[in-house]
Amino acid sequence: MASLNFSNEALKSLIDHFPESSLLISKEDLIPYSFDATATFYHAPLAVLFPSSIEDILWVLQWAKSNHACILPRGSGTSLSGAAVPQKNSIVLSMTKWNKILEADPYNLTLLVEPGITTQAVQEEAAKFSLFYPPDPGSYKISTIGGNVGHNSGGIRGLKYGVTRNYVLGMEVVLPNGQVIWLGNKCVKDSAGYSLKDLFIGSEGTLGIVTKVLLRLIPKPQERQVILASFPTLEVASEATSAIIKAALIPSALEFLDQKTIECIESYSPAGFPKESQAVLLIESDGHPQAVRDEITRISQVLKQYGPLEIRIAENPKQQEQLWSARKVAFSALARKAPTVLLEDVTVPRSSLAQMIRKIQQISKAYAVEIAVYAHMGDGNLHPVFLGDEKNKDLMERVFRAMKEIFLYAIKLGGTITGEHGVGLAKKEFLAYQYKSEEFQLLKNIKKILDPENLLNPGKIFD
Amino acid sequence: MASLNFSNEALKSLIDHFPESSLLISKEDLIPYSFDATATFYHAPLAVLFPSSIEDILWVLQWAKSNHACILPRGSGTSLSGAAVPQKNSIVLSMTKWNKILEADPYNLTLLVEPGITTQAVQEEAAKFSLFYPPDPGSYKISTIGGNVGHNSGGIRGLKYGVTRNYVLGMEVVLPNGQVIWLGNKCVKDSAGYSLKDLFIGSEGTLGIVTKVLLRLIPKPQERQVILASFPTLEVASEATSAIIKAALIPSALEFLDQKTIECIESYSPAGFPKESQAVLLIESDGHPQAVRDEITRISQVLKQYGPLEIRIAENPKQQEQLWSARKVAFSALARKAPTVLLEDVTVPRSSLAQMIRKIQQISKAYAVEIAVYAHMGDGNLHPVFLGDEKNKDLMERVFRAMKEIFLYAIKLGGTITGEHGVGLAKKEFLAYQYKSEEFQLLKNIKKILDPENLLNPGKIFD
Repeated sequence: MASLNFSNEALKSLIDHFPESSLLISKEDLIPYSFDATATFYHAPLAVLFPSSIEDILWVLQWAKSNHACILPRGSGTSLSGAAVPQKNSIVLSMTKWNKILEADPYNLTLLVEPGITTQAVQEEAAKFSLFYPPDPGSYKISTIGGNVGHNSGGIRGLKYGVTRNYVLGMEVVLPNGQVIWLGNKCVKDSAGYSLKDLFIGSEGTLGIVTKVLLRLIPKPQERQVILASFPTLEVASEATSAIIKAALIPSALEFLDQKTIECIESYSPAGFPKESQAVLLIESDGHPQAVRDEITRISQVLKQYGPLEIRIAENPKQQEQLWSARKVAFSALARKAPTVLLEDVTVPRSSLAQMIRKIQQISKAYAVEIAVYAHMGDGNLHPVFLGDEKNKDLMERVFRAMKEIFLYAIKLGGTITGEHGVGLAKKEFLAYQYKSEEFQLLKNIKKILDPENLLNPGKIFD
Repeated sequence: MASLNFSNEALKSLIDHFPESSLLISKEDLIPYSFDATATFYHAPLAVLFPSSIEDILWVLQWAKSNHACILPRGSGTSLSGAAVPQKNSIVLSMTKWNKILEADPYNLTLLVEPGITTQAVQEEAAKFSLFYPPDPGSYKISTIGGNVGHNSGGIRGLKYGVTRNYVLGMEVVLPNGQVIWLGNKCVKDSAGYSLKDLFIGSEGTLGIVTKVLLRLIPKPQERQVILASFPTLEVASEATSAIIKAALIPSALEFLDQKTIECIESYSPAGFPKESQAVLLIESDGHPQAVRDEITRISQVLKQYGPLEIRIAENPKQQEQLWSARKVAFSALARKAPTVLLEDVTVPRSSLAQMIRKIQQISKAYAVEIAVYAHMGDGNLHPVFLGDEKNKDLMERVFRAMKEIFLYAIKLGGTITGEHGVGLAKKEFLAYQYKSEEFQLLKNIKKILDPENLLNPGKIFD
């Protein structure tokens, strides 16, 4: 505890209460907890607490209440909205050590886990029982289930399998008032009272601290097949996507990469993406072997109507894996392209994909801002990636103006400013455009009854 | 307006405001709106209003507020929990004339409908586009989407396809304070703020008046196959069900009928159910033709391990339809067996089915109450049917004691008092057993912020 950099009485009582091994307070130790995966936010917490029990959580809640501090529950900090960045007088409550599987129940196809377990560990545990946990956010290797619940995380399989919400059967939550409640159960149907569980999913740690999660698993698809199609323009690729959905074909993934993204991936970790094409669709079908073959055939037929430069079917699991690995490094590859890289997350109705993509191109030109786009296209979920530089004030201003215009256009098309990253700090300014004032007030009212003293992750989603 | 049976000033202002064709006030006209499909509740409303616009709804809300009356939004009144039975000083707001399809969007696989449209009409509209709306409550021919949303209705396809909640993308709601809000959008992913939409789904008309619903449709399964298996005991059939789930086989329906139910169906509308067996499982697989064949084979293999008396695969669509029609008349058939028939709705984790069924048998004997059981077994959702007689006070007392014991046992097994019928009046007494007092208080707090004056369907879910 060498570099103790505060002397406040209140903090002393915190330090006195917890063993040294549970608390980080030195300036250097706090650095990794001062930001998340969003590029532009930074604020150091007062301390980081690794609670060892519910009692610890209750104690620190009470402490925060008495000392006008606040609590930020945090997993691995992979949030892309600033939801995991501390605000003034925050104690970070790190749940990463709560990473156990408490019960695997193959009779009910459920997993009871602690919130600090990684998404990948959950996927692996499911696989042990030949079961499947579909949500698959980009950061799945390190993102935690608690964080996934907080953001209602999605990933590449949303169009067929849905998002985190669809796999949460129940949860234990510590409320700001110190009550420990349990919501949900192992039943796949339950109409007993308001679905409070759904209120906490996607609430970004602003309503309660999730301490256990009961997850629903599903049968593991027997087989998968991956198909790659490259196109001469972004628009044609968008139109082909809309046509696939219109044909009521819902593959397990339908990803999009623009030329900039492809180029970056190929120079970062070559996977044989066709560099010369303007857009690539990467489509996975899974399920019964014959069903997969038929779906791939039907999808190919649709694709062919849109003049693809190439259609390539991965010949074996190794090739499939190669394509997916390449897709999964998209953000890391792009992150090397500029000093400050901002990943956005607008989502539009799937009939409006070409329109949205066209608008992004126009905006990129109009503001002279480089924007790469990759997308969970089958969900209508686009990730425009802004290549900026924090040291170039003028550029960053244009970046934010371009971003705002993209948000507003997505809303105009009946879309949302965030498909899976959440609102956090990054988008709270724009949420008011998506919600009418009455709807916006309702969000605040919900916060008010659950957290009247604004103890939990204040300043996120709204002020 | 012959038999005007009230003279109250307030009601006069209501009558003066609306055209005669929009308002029912005569004693006889109010009778059909004084009960729902639950056998034991009856209370006449003050009047029934058929609003012709949002303005009408706003007017009557204001009127109710000024006159200490309350509003009960109502579809077809097929609720099985008393949720659609008026309480004191209620105006029934009948939404049945709001039954239009406002937009079918095959590009986004969505339907925008008015709340008074029937579930069947939605299913039929979806079918026109070769799409599928899976929720399928027993009353689908007349139940409305608004009612389905209010109860988060399920039906026979819950295990594979989920319930109403899984198909509601958005809704327009009139709040008790007169605000008209829109929640959700056509995007299949949305992480922008708390999921208020999910709060209204299953809220039984206590939080807002749903005036539009945006539904999600999915591709229509290509083929279906139905298999019937009969068993010598209820328990073996339950164990076979648990074994199917444990084998990660999730067919599109897995229904259960006990011997009493079979007997009634056969004498009401003969379908060739094997009368001599104690329990029948009716299982449907749907999807890709080859996948269906393989699933049926694997399910048969599991069933055979539990010593079935018979396994029968429907040979053609006509036979399939016959079996399903017979299953769907189960409640009507049982309703003829006694003067007062109460249909219950407990749900348990699917590993506990045999235990629950055994307990129901014991309780039936202990209280000398005839209880038939049919079930959405694959969901763990049991419908014990109590054969009672309102004129026999002693019998009815035993019926309610037996019922309570079944509820408590379901809760003990980690289940719920209602899988799909909702709480309404019938179960509010028992909800407090399922929720801890803090959780229960939270439900009430939600009601309080949305409906501080208790204008909407008061006395339902909780007091």
